[in-house]
Amino acid sequence: MSAHETVEIAGHLMDHGILSLVLDDIREYGGDYTIDRFDVGRETDDPSHAVITVTAEDDEELQRLLMRLQTRGVNQVDPGEATTAEADRDGVFPDGFYSTTNLDTRVRVDDRWLDVENPEMDCGLIVERDAGGAATRVYTLPMSDLRVGMQVVVGASGVKVSVPTPDATGGAFGFMESEVSSEKPHAVLVRQVADGMREAKAEGKKVLWVGGPGVVHTGAAPALVALVHAGYVDVLFAGNALATHDIESALYGTSLGVDLAMARGVEHGHEHHIRALNTIRREGSIRAAVDSGVLTSGIMHALVTHQKSYVLVGSVRDDGPLPDVYTDVIEGQRAMRAQLPGVGFCIMVATTLHSVATGNILPASIPLVCVDINPATVTKLADRGSSQARGIVTDVGLFLEQLAVELVPGYRRS
Amino acid sequence: MSAHETVEIAGHLMDHGILSLVLDDIREYGGDYTIDRFDVGRETDDPSHAVITVTAEDDEELQRLLMRLQTRGVNQVDPGEATTAEADRDGVFPDGFYSTTNLDTRVRVDDRWLDVENPEMDCGLIVERDAGGAATRVYTLPMSDLRVGMQVVVGASGVKVSVPTPDATGGAFGFMESEVSSEKPHAVLVRQVADGMREAKAEGKKVLWVGGPGVVHTGAAPALVALVHAGYVDVLFAGNALATHDIESALYGTSLGVDLAMARGVEHGHEHHIRALNTIRREGSIRAAVDSGVLTSGIMHALVTHQKSYVLVGSVRDDGPLPDVYTDVIEGQRAMRAQLPGVGFCIMVATTLHSVATGNILPASIPLVCVDINPATVTKLADRGSSQARGIVTDVGLFLEQLAVELVPGYRRS
Amino acid sequence: MSAHETVEIAGHLMDHGILSLVLDDIREYGGDYTIDRFDVGRETDDPSHAVITVTAEDDEELQRLLMRLQTRGVNQVDPGEATTAEADRDGVFPDGFYSTTNLDTRVRVDDRWLDVENPEMDCGLIVERDAGGAATRVYTLPMSDLRVGMQVVVGASGVKVSVPTPDATGGAFGFMESEVSSEKPHAVLVRQVADGMREAKAEGKKVLWVGGPGVVHTGAAPALVALVHAGYVDVLFAGNALATHDIESALYGTSLGVDLAMARGVEHGHEHHIRALNTIRREGSIRAAVDSGVLTSGIMHALVTHQKSYVLVGSVRDDGPLPDVYTDVIEGQRAMRAQLPGVGFCIMVATTLHSVATGNILPASIPLVCVDINPATVTKLADRGSSQARGIVTDVGLFLEQLAVELVPGYRRS
Amino acid sequence: MSAHETVEIAGHLMDHGILSLVLDDIREYGGDYTIDRFDVGRETDDPSHAVITVTAEDDEELQRLLMRLQTRGVNQVDPGEATTAEADRDGVFPDGFYSTTNLDTRVRVDDRWLDVENPEMDCGLIVERDAGGAATRVYTLPMSDLRVGMQVVVGASGVKVSVPTPDATGGAFGFMESEVSSEKPHAVLVRQVADGMREAKAEGKKVLWVGGPGVVHTGAAPALVALVHAGYVDVLFAGNALATHDIESALYGTSLGVDLAMARGVEHGHEHHIRALNTIRREGSIRAAVDSGVLTSGIMHALVTHQKSYVLVGSVRDDGPLPDVYTDVIEGQRAMRAQLPGVGFCIMVATTLHSVATGNILPASIPLVCVDINPATVTKLADRGSSQARGIVTDVGLFLEQLAVELVPGYRRS
Repeated sequence: MSAHETVEIAGHLMDHGILSLVLDDIREYGGDYTIDRFDVGRETDDPSHAVITVTAEDDEELQRLLMRLQTRGVNQVDPGEATTAEADRDGVFPDGFYSTTNLDTRVRVDDRWLDVENPEMDCGLIVERDAGGAATRVYTLPMSDLRVGMQVVVGASGVKVSVPTPDATGGAFGFMESEVSSEKPHAVLVRQVADGMREAKAEGKKVLWVGGPGVVHTGAAPALVALVHAGYVDVLFAGNALATHDIESALYGTSLGVDLAMARGVEHGHEHHIRALNTIRREGSIRAAVDSGVLTSGIMHALVTHQKSYVLVGSVRDDGPLPDVYTDVIEGQRAMRAQLPGVGFCIMVATTLHSVATGNILPASIPLVCVDINPATVTKLADRGSSQARGIVTDVGLFLEQLAVELVPGYRRS
Repeated sequence: MSAHETVEIAGHLMDHGILSLVLDDIREYGGDYTIDRFDVGRETDDPSHAVITVTAEDDEELQRLLMRLQTRGVNQVDPGEATTAEADRDGVFPDGFYSTTNLDTRVRVDDRWLDVENPEMDCGLIVERDAGGAATRVYTLPMSDLRVGMQVVVGASGVKVSVPTPDATGGAFGFMESEVSSEKPHAVLVRQVADGMREAKAEGKKVLWVGGPGVVHTGAAPALVALVHAGYVDVLFAGNALATHDIESALYGTSLGVDLAMARGVEHGHEHHIRALNTIRREGSIRAAVDSGVLTSGIMHALVTHQKSYVLVGSVRDDGPLPDVYTDVIEGQRAMRAQLPGVGFCIMVATTLHSVATGNILPASIPLVCVDINPATVTKLADRGSSQARGIVTDVGLFLEQLAVELVPGYRRS
Repeated sequence: MSAHETVEIAGHLMDHGILSLVLDDIREYGGDYTIDRFDVGRETDDPSHAVITVTAEDDEELQRLLMRLQTRGVNQVDPGEATTAEADRDGVFPDGFYSTTNLDTRVRVDDRWLDVENPEMDCGLIVERDAGGAATRVYTLPMSDLRVGMQVVVGASGVKVSVPTPDATGGAFGFMESEVSSEKPHAVLVRQVADGMREAKAEGKKVLWVGGPGVVHTGAAPALVALVHAGYVDVLFAGNALATHDIESALYGTSLGVDLAMARGVEHGHEHHIRALNTIRREGSIRAAVDSGVLTSGIMHALVTHQKSYVLVGSVRDDGPLPDVYTDVIEGQRAMRAQLPGVGFCIMVATTLHSVATGNILPASIPLVCVDINPATVTKLADRGSSQARGIVTDVGLFLEQLAVELVPGYRRS
Repeated sequence: MSAHETVEIAGHLMDHGILSLVLDDIREYGGDYTIDRFDVGRETDDPSHAVITVTAEDDEELQRLLMRLQTRGVNQVDPGEATTAEADRDGVFPDGFYSTTNLDTRVRVDDRWLDVENPEMDCGLIVERDAGGAATRVYTLPMSDLRVGMQVVVGASGVKVSVPTPDATGGAFGFMESEVSSEKPHAVLVRQVADGMREAKAEGKKVLWVGGPGVVHTGAAPALVALVHAGYVDVLFAGNALATHDIESALYGTSLGVDLAMARGVEHGHEHHIRALNTIRREGSIRAAVDSGVLTSGIMHALVTHQKSYVLVGSVRDDGPLPDVYTDVIEGQRAMRAQLPGVGFCIMVATTLHSVATGNILPASIPLVCVDINPATVTKLADRGSSQARGIVTDVGLFLEQLAVELVPGYRRS
């Protein structure tokens, strides 16, 4: 009782190994295939086009395989109409729900193609209808935000995705073809990241930063402050640690473990840390501490005075935390999502936790760079589906220093 | 206008470099010292005793330095009485509050020494009094749990700490003298960890496990299940990821990225992951899924059927999450603290986030082993004050396999 | 004035992304291509076949590109005859020499196809002729062994390579499809490596081990000794360090830094190290030390008593060295090459230097496993052309312990 | 039948934990001790002085323990006269030979104290006498250079060592107090390394560089070339790889794996690599290739044209090698030793093998910085006895770029 469907994919299938990945997927899901047609690009720049019949054990398996193939940009030749089912329980998708990719997606409802709002991976697709029953919008929704009565797309029918072409994400990011490596001429990479940020700003888009406390430990705070002043930091996603260490450094001249001015280690400066937290809690918020003159320097100070946004989300290892921190992680995710519209470039620096968290909610269409001294961080990001993520394995402190030299006229560490 | 105080420390000061660390601390805090008396242990096993006068710029600096020195086991010769101040705001300590260590601590109030309940680092000390105004108990309290009107110890006066002697924590853990290293004969270490667990159980204490999803990825789940069956897992602290990957593996035979039976990679099996979450959410809880026969194997299943405790605390990168997960991290920390009484041994496996979180709340008196393939995890734990943490840099899968062979009669992977 | 050539490749081109890599190569070398024919395997198991016309700027560029493509298994449709040039200087190849791959290779000379002896990468191909001028053999030769008058193949004409099919190298090594990862169920991998060794022995082939001093530091020496006894170690390639630490351990019960029996660190045990070296130097050789009863246990002792071969090659950081060590690295390489005939399985453990050195001279047809706690070692091996290398990122001590349990009946660490 | 000896040590024993290490050593060697006198420095800056009686099982054990203690700067109160024994075999020290430290050392022969020439660890001490039998010099000699008839010091009597005081090595290197860490403000460290080099040059001393191929891969070659031009590179120790990749880059614009101008990866560019080697071999030497106009840029070109020295020592993984490479590692070590006189600063960049090799032969009195993105390299160096080594865990490319900006007027990457 096998089920089958005919799918197609077009593009530079040979150059980027996409077709191989597609066939691998089919085998991994226990399916089978016949290549019905394969028009190979004859010359170097010609696109290829493949039509493949996919077979699975039953329709449920087939639907799941088809969803899987969509992450590669493979669509059904005849996608048909989307099927929906009504949520019968808060926070629980109906069986067979369509699990989203982070690609640009369209859904055919009532014979019309609607663009999906806010592409985000691992979500459901919600179809909204007007009073007359006509579909008005389709948007992604995370599991925990689902409410009874919502219409959820089930199965892969009626859904089409578009894979960004390398040129589209590309621009200055040609380098991004390359893999994670610590053996790269980083001075050149610095310039390419700078170009990416300049392009985003030129297009009126926001630059999103995701940072860990290593930004402070490596002495990169002055560089980041300069980048805030120069307008290259529109939003910061971070945790309690980055903000606390930055504030501790501003209040006491130390952060957990390092005397920044003297480049000397200060072992376990817990006590400063906990007092810095208490001080800001007394003020009520970081902004209040800036307004009252208690906090007069550092990254958080710069963000506040330049009216930039930040979303601090807590974690189980937090001390304090700062009053601005979302202690509920699901609420924190919502606050992060609210900042995504208008983002045109994302840079992740020295954090695995918040990088993966941001990668989870970011559309694949936004250029994404991950900078870390640890290759595992970048690898983890790509492994979890942020295939557009490009990694730079380098020293965060020196990298941000160089980036500031590149982007901020007259920048030179005093 | 300098301030000074005479402090003392006793023990094997020379052997373990403690005195050096004490003098380093004084310099780091900008203080000065005179060694008034130093009775050195003449023979190899004799303890030493030092009396030191410490000087700081002013009393505030002095008090902070004295608190710092307490983390080394240095107490005032004449500690005096503890001073308290009343909290005037929820979640904010009074200025100059005593910031705790994770050492056994006593506080002198009303001329009586009271043992501090629940030693935990980076907390305040709360003094409770009866109707007649007599102090009845002193306990640690994290910043965020403070309420207006509570009496908080300020300054270092009236506080004494005891550093655990190596013998006391030691027993089988003589190996723990050694530093983090991947160049260690791990087969021997396996046996020593097994001995530590046996001792804890023999004393009627609980064994606390802290784990990351790597436990599942490395194929160690069967070994951990066997250890649950054999009674060597009383409590598990973890995040959404370990539980979800375990459940995904139980439901679909895969976890994010690995086909465990075939040892083949399954790239980004997101879709299984998100469906496993949805399945358990539909059941309402992990226990409900076990009861209804939906979940029939794996680590979480074993914990539920053996009536063992687990605390799952969420993080910003979570999908779902599982219904059992604390999405508020502060509530999660409280749930973790509630499990600590009776713990006699703690093992942390393949997680940085939850290891540091647990290290933050664990008394220094509980033997603590951290097992990870990444040396940085162990280093980070020790850097943050869990000085009793001993690291084993090894493959988690093979380590737990060996540990099960050691502890579970007849264990052999089928 | 461009040059062009028609090439072909057959096999599972889609499944393993080979064709993509081929087209990438052409672009990287500044060439261009037209796909003349592409017969795609219609069903899952059908092979594909591609015919491609490659264009380069001039013939020199073209020849180099063609050599490059041969590393992928791409051959000229009409390979023609090999051209040779005579070496006019010792140790220097003629211009345009054919630079070899480590694949099975055939060369057409005088209208006959001759199999190349000893496939090895980065060598030249030497054609030997009999008195009558007829070609009798073709073999690889490293640059430094070339002598004036030898006939060296130049250009890519007349050369054909065969890529091993996954099935051919495979057998038990299906796991080898997977990439380097520390997130793998290693217990299963242990069994697969054991199967690979058993197969090699069953076929009458030798098992080659390449090891670093970490074998001794991790306490794996007893396991390796048991494997020697059981016949699973035919040849060992190593440096001065492994042998010295093994002998130091045998003589003094310590190795550089670790007391193996007590699992305690012995910091910088240099003095033992240097005395162990002196002791063996006094005996004249490791074998002499075994014969005279000075060396009575350990890995080197086991190899000597079981008449197994070892090649120890020195490095610039060596103390001593042991009298058996080749201090000239080129002579050492020759000694290693002399051991390769008959090798059917190769395992590399805890060494980057000797792993890369062995990878350089090993034919691609020999199954190759690399075990290290550091992912970078395995990555480096693959990056340098040992594409058959499969990595297992794990603890060497526990891995060899498990391997001994698997392969040696009755093995259990005393 | 125990043996004992009274030893002493002076200095900042408490501050740097030295005394603890000494007592640890005694225990590790199975000895026992009594602290006879301990004059503790009363004020912060006062030195301490300890007199300790050390007991061991027999005189042989005692002598070895005393040698061990000398690595900490512990000397016998009554050192007596040195005893010598005649070498009876080439390359083999007499039993009980004194194994050297890398500290400044003096030896008392014939009632006179002689300074040891060329302090180097793990060597023997050779006493030379004039015709009349009077001792004229004492020098270190590695095992392999020993010849029959030489007089070798045995036992620890008559030998005194001096530990460098932090101030003496220090100067600008105050930062060097701190441990290996990737969480350091590296911009400050760059300046401190620059100061160290300036000081060495100001004192007329040489700056020794030890480098790995990562220098080329990270795009740091232009920075290093600028530093050669500016006079901050007097000697380079490296292997075949650094020189070959540098030359390959100069000849073809690529190195193994990276297109430096475009920051794009070039996978396995073996073929360029092997041709670059062949080209230089044809010229006869690197200098000849510069003279003939074949090699016109890069690091090796800069060293040749500026008349700077380099020592390239081969390893077992080498292709080629370049004609300038010492293929015999013991000869290579000799060539390296010959360059040490006059060195006032040593920097090691992106190499473990050559860093350890240089650490082995370098006196402890020479300031030593090790820069690597991998913390393990630095740790390994310190573990092997180069206690003066200070580590900077950072990106080599950006670090050298910054160092060139700091040291070379007008330097800015074109």
